[in-house]
Amino acid sequence: MKTKENILIVGAGLCGSLLALRLGQRGYKVTVMESRPDLRKVDISAGRSINLAFSDRGIKAMNMVGIADKVMPLCIPMHGRLVHDVEGNIFMSNYSGRDNEYINSISRGDLNALLLTEAEEHEAVDIIFNKRCTKIDIEENIATFYCYETKKEIEVKADVIFGADGAGSMLRKSYYLERKFLFSYSQNYLSHGYKELSIPPTATGGFRTEKNALHIWPRGDFMIIALPNLDGSFTVTLFLSYDEGEYNFNNLTTAERVQEFFEAQFPDLIPLIPELTKEYFENPTSPLGTVKCSPWSYKNNTLLMGDAAHAIVPFYGQGMNASFEDVVVFNEVLDQYEGDWEKVFKTYEKIRKKDTDAIADLAIDNYYEMRDHVANPIFKEKRKLEMDLEKNFPEQYFSKYSMVTFNEDLPYSKAMKIGRAQDKALLNMIADDEIDTTADLKEILKKVQAETNEILDEDTVANLKH
Amino acid sequence: MKTKENILIVGAGLCGSLLALRLGQRGYKVTVMESRPDLRKVDISAGRSINLAFSDRGIKAMNMVGIADKVMPLCIPMHGRLVHDVEGNIFMSNYSGRDNEYINSISRGDLNALLLTEAEEHEAVDIIFNKRCTKIDIEENIATFYCYETKKEIEVKADVIFGADGAGSMLRKSYYLERKFLFSYSQNYLSHGYKELSIPPTATGGFRTEKNALHIWPRGDFMIIALPNLDGSFTVTLFLSYDEGEYNFNNLTTAERVQEFFEAQFPDLIPLIPELTKEYFENPTSPLGTVKCSPWSYKNNTLLMGDAAHAIVPFYGQGMNASFEDVVVFNEVLDQYEGDWEKVFKTYEKIRKKDTDAIADLAIDNYYEMRDHVANPIFKEKRKLEMDLEKNFPEQYFSKYSMVTFNEDLPYSKAMKIGRAQDKALLNMIADDEIDTTADLKEILKKVQAETNEILDEDTVANLKH
Repeated sequence: MKTKENILIVGAGLCGSLLALRLGQRGYKVTVMESRPDLRKVDISAGRSINLAFSDRGIKAMNMVGIADKVMPLCIPMHGRLVHDVEGNIFMSNYSGRDNEYINSISRGDLNALLLTEAEEHEAVDIIFNKRCTKIDIEENIATFYCYETKKEIEVKADVIFGADGAGSMLRKSYYLERKFLFSYSQNYLSHGYKELSIPPTATGGFRTEKNALHIWPRGDFMIIALPNLDGSFTVTLFLSYDEGEYNFNNLTTAERVQEFFEAQFPDLIPLIPELTKEYFENPTSPLGTVKCSPWSYKNNTLLMGDAAHAIVPFYGQGMNASFEDVVVFNEVLDQYEGDWEKVFKTYEKIRKKDTDAIADLAIDNYYEMRDHVANPIFKEKRKLEMDLEKNFPEQYFSKYSMVTFNEDLPYSKAMKIGRAQDKALLNMIADDEIDTTADLKEILKKVQAETNEILDEDTVANLKH
Repeated sequence: MKTKENILIVGAGLCGSLLALRLGQRGYKVTVMESRPDLRKVDISAGRSINLAFSDRGIKAMNMVGIADKVMPLCIPMHGRLVHDVEGNIFMSNYSGRDNEYINSISRGDLNALLLTEAEEHEAVDIIFNKRCTKIDIEENIATFYCYETKKEIEVKADVIFGADGAGSMLRKSYYLERKFLFSYSQNYLSHGYKELSIPPTATGGFRTEKNALHIWPRGDFMIIALPNLDGSFTVTLFLSYDEGEYNFNNLTTAERVQEFFEAQFPDLIPLIPELTKEYFENPTSPLGTVKCSPWSYKNNTLLMGDAAHAIVPFYGQGMNASFEDVVVFNEVLDQYEGDWEKVFKTYEKIRKKDTDAIADLAIDNYYEMRDHVANPIFKEKRKLEMDLEKNFPEQYFSKYSMVTFNEDLPYSKAMKIGRAQDKALLNMIADDEIDTTADLKEILKKVQAETNEILDEDTVANLKH
């Protein structure tokens, strides 16, 4: 086998560091350039996405690189959504009827640090911080970086450059601006932004509310969620419109207004967030956007991966898992075509793009589901029925959520297609009173499956061949 | 009423010149700046979109400005698709079962010239050519133009600037690059491009093939269409993949290959296109893209309109009609809120955006329909049945195509929603042999309507509130 190429990875975030680790394991010479300081030495979180949902697709990726056992201690299992209404009533809605299926809250920083350390164990992997990518010449394969320490620009030439540089990717920008080829591109923002707040631990380091759940305060036009951290705190995220409705980010400009908003809508949260107004005004308000593009690669030289190729909104808890799965799929394609980068890149996109498009769309769906539908009676009845089906037929019934989250070998695009048809079947059968809840559950299962298949068939015919 | 504002329109194409005419009629002081020379004096077509499909939404716009009687003599009615198979067999597929419903072939240049002349009749409308927009300052409301005659840049300040500057809009680029607000934007290319060729008139100025039809040579992965011109010629458009399949734009590099391609796939066209290989290599290959964006306006200062706001692929023959309809809708909003530009702009987008999104999606659907489905037996049976239904129940049945093309008072978004459900109902009923074609047509109509409504209801329940 010929000497492996020099690889440059732009970005040492979750995707870039996992990719570096895997390529290091495969024997490549890898340089990773990261604009921020080493997060193992400096706290750089600053009120943004402190913790994330980690589930089976992510775990599969950790198994690929052999570090799942080191990741699990960083995880806090969340068995379901714990829904809080305005009166302070709560109810739990499990993620699955199977006991072994749950998602995890994990610190982005802790996981990223572990991946960096594991990658650096490989002598051929070099991670360099404080270098911001300012330009990529996709013809000559040269990336230019501004060094925050020397204040100078440096150029790095590599055989292959991976853009794992996140939603604001410089490599993607090069594709867009250089106009060397027809580049399909979209950036779509929701009308809502988000802001992070926090529930501190108790004086003794305990949790102020239920630890093993994803808390949610759905209010129709806006919502709050909270995820637990290992230190007993919760990271709280407010999703709110920028400029619509009685309360929005643009008109919540005083401490009094913020206090009034929380008293009216989230009274049970007020005692839990002691620094409410301080955090509200200190932490940034960030937009929620979806990015899709194609092609992801140029010749045999450069490839977009992770958020750089497909940034999604956070409502399915799949952003990190999808980026990790990118590396799993890429690794499989590399097994097949190693040595022919252009073939690897094209095959990878052909296999992967439909799935990242699907999870992007599913995440938007869940934005509405979480805000509105979790409190809708038909939706609640559907969830209850699905829990019963999963509990009683653990090998035969999988909700859309389970297919997306816990069935790591089912591609997102199939999970979406089947899951949407199944949801449609269930919601219509419930709305039309076609499900006799006193009937035998096995009969209900058969009916749901038949109806789902009919919906899939009808869609196939309506779309003819395409 | 206060003195009307100074309006600057960037672009004197079909949308810009109609907008100038209408705003001139309403008493505004209008300056239009156009990058190209005056097409009434110089031939600038150069092998691109020489003729277009013109139908009821466009006619409604011409009625708004009172020039429909001047436009009609420029039109050649096309009653249906005349489909040519590889063996040279032809069959006609009418656009509607109602005799008075047909589309028209019209010369882009002739229509644009008429609109320019009509706009210039108004003293307050000034149209200036050979000025290419290079920059728009959306805060200060200043547009910069490069003058091809003086080779100098000039600045124009206006109270309101309209970007009617087409798919490559400079105003849209300013929105994107200045990052003053969250700008959702997408550009999506099909894998196919297009190239124009021509069938000349006969020696006596007659038509070499059927005059009153849109000719189509569907071949699955590629196709050709031809539209008639007043001088007896036809403009022929080849739609072909850039790089996939046995024949594609990238590998048709010699006259022999082009000849071979046409002999294999379009033998009946060869005698009709005497300059085939010459035109093939002289005329450009152009991409097919869809552009969507939001917001269309910034403050009370600037607004995108026509292709600048929503470029679509040509497969529904609605690009020009949609841009003209923009001006109709804008005019109605202006009736309501004249004097408050910000309110006008926001209301206009709120009403209009869902409809331009819909026609963009419908045009993509038709790309597949024209290439593949017109030759599909289920599709053919559906079209036949729809013709019968329209003929027998002209007040009660409207195909999707009729809703989009001939029902100018039905918004595109509704036409899409109802039309897609109806297509799904029909295709499935035909595929499942649920339609007894010997049965009473009235019974069939009722069945189709019932099935369509059920599909719409089921979709509504499945989407819950959103």
